[in-house]
Amino acid sequence: MPKTVLVVYAHPEPASLTRQFVRETIQIFGKQGHIVLQSDLYNMEWKAIFDESDFPCRINTDRLDFIQESGNTYATDQQSPDIATEQRKLLAADLVIFHFPLWWYGMPAILKGWIDRVYAHGFAYGYKGEGNRYRYGDGIFKGKRALLSVMVGGPEEDYAPRGINGPLDELLFPITHGTLFFPGFDVLTTHAVYGTGKIEISAAEEEFAVWRARLEHIFDEMPIPFRRQNSGDYQGGILADHICSGKSGLSIHIDNDSSM
Amino acid sequence: MPKTVLVVYAHPEPASLTRQFVRETIQIFGKQGHIVLQSDLYNMEWKAIFDESDFPCRINTDRLDFIQESGNTYATDQQSPDIATEQRKLLAADLVIFHFPLWWYGMPAILKGWIDRVYAHGFAYGYKGEGNRYRYGDGIFKGKRALLSVMVGGPEEDYAPRGINGPLDELLFPITHGTLFFPGFDVLTTHAVYGTGKIEISAAEEEFAVWRARLEHIFDEMPIPFRRQNSGDYQGGILADHICSGKSGLSIHIDNDSSM
Repeated sequence: MPKTVLVVYAHPEPASLTRQFVRETIQIFGKQGHIVLQSDLYNMEWKAIFDESDFPCRINTDRLDFIQESGNTYATDQQSPDIATEQRKLLAADLVIFHFPLWWYGMPAILKGWIDRVYAHGFAYGYKGEGNRYRYGDGIFKGKRALLSVMVGGPEEDYAPRGINGPLDELLFPITHGTLFFPGFDVLTTHAVYGTGKIEISAAEEEFAVWRARLEHIFDEMPIPFRRQNSGDYQGGILADHICSGKSGLSIHIDNDSSM
Repeated sequence: MPKTVLVVYAHPEPASLTRQFVRETIQIFGKQGHIVLQSDLYNMEWKAIFDESDFPCRINTDRLDFIQESGNTYATDQQSPDIATEQRKLLAADLVIFHFPLWWYGMPAILKGWIDRVYAHGFAYGYKGEGNRYRYGDGIFKGKRALLSVMVGGPEEDYAPRGINGPLDELLFPITHGTLFFPGFDVLTTHAVYGTGKIEISAAEEEFAVWRARLEHIFDEMPIPFRRQNSGDYQGGILADHICSGKSGLSIHIDNDSSM
């Protein structure tokens, strides 16, 4: 059965490695008969800055409260067309892939601004008007998959478990866990290519082949076993005492003992 | 002796808690006779998106390579005036404070775009044309201090060492370690206020008092003891075997045994 794939990408240079990966993605899924939607943020001249112009009919014109105005604008269907279009694409997608270069250990601003603006209150958070009830495993994107495809300028060693930058998965945790798992996506392992500043053509070709091979089975992959808020692992906002007792940090929110 | 303080902030609402903190900061340092520089990103209509228009005279017009063009534009003094101005402010500052609301576990896009654009190659990375030689403790900002003042909508519990979101310090590690310590800042402990979505006026007043008290002694605070790349703790890009043996993750890059 054909699936719908949304490809969100953030690089203005068509010859960049990021954009070459995007083309591979589009080609593979096209060949398989899937529907591919694209959000080419630079080409769309995506508005990155979340501001009062995103709320044409304010509840409170005296004091701008983003959460309140975002919730009202979403609920009353007054969102700017660019935001509403992206939300529709997300709702249509079975799989969302974000292709971007790692800039200062995070997303380019244009992509962060896509999250800031598209992730409306009532949509990606505060779902069903119930505060934090639906998050981390539940939420509007439940049943969909998402992953990051990241081009990393520096060497892999620097992002190793004991690498000087910190492990890539932990640096990206605010994105994978905080922006993808939070509204309910099943998050697949981040696909990273390192040393992209100086990559040779032959090495790039190998990386494309690895990516194509991965995409062939992407709908069968096991997601990262992030712990679900509503699984019983948490008591309030805290991981239950009996789980990873005495430990802290980001990795305790991944259930490495889960049966796969 | 008077110091120079740069306050960079990212909230468009003058009545927001973020902006109230900014006013406290400006007032305290003004009273103490220090020089206060401001970067009010929303009011400046800061250009968040790093793109080809930032490189008026390209080395290579066929293919946009951000690092190459950033380095050349910086070295040949062709930067756009908004970028050059921010760099001059940074160079003038003894202390830089970033005031922003936490949006999706990171900076608002407008602030990320300030980092993306102001942190030119040859300036904040690739310093002195020597690749990664000067980073993490060395770099252009060596001898200066910086810290984040973050307004967090959710409850403190969710950001505790075992909180469901992950500990705030680890979520912000890509910023504190990756964008502040990297180019040489001494990074002070992040100042967080939680539950800002529903904060009462009296609670806010208490928070302002805590912040004012902290600022009184901010130049005497001990910075976060992030490990310096060139201290001998690293072998290449990897933490030496004898340090935090068998451990991995972000926290191993903090030397909690350092004499304070």
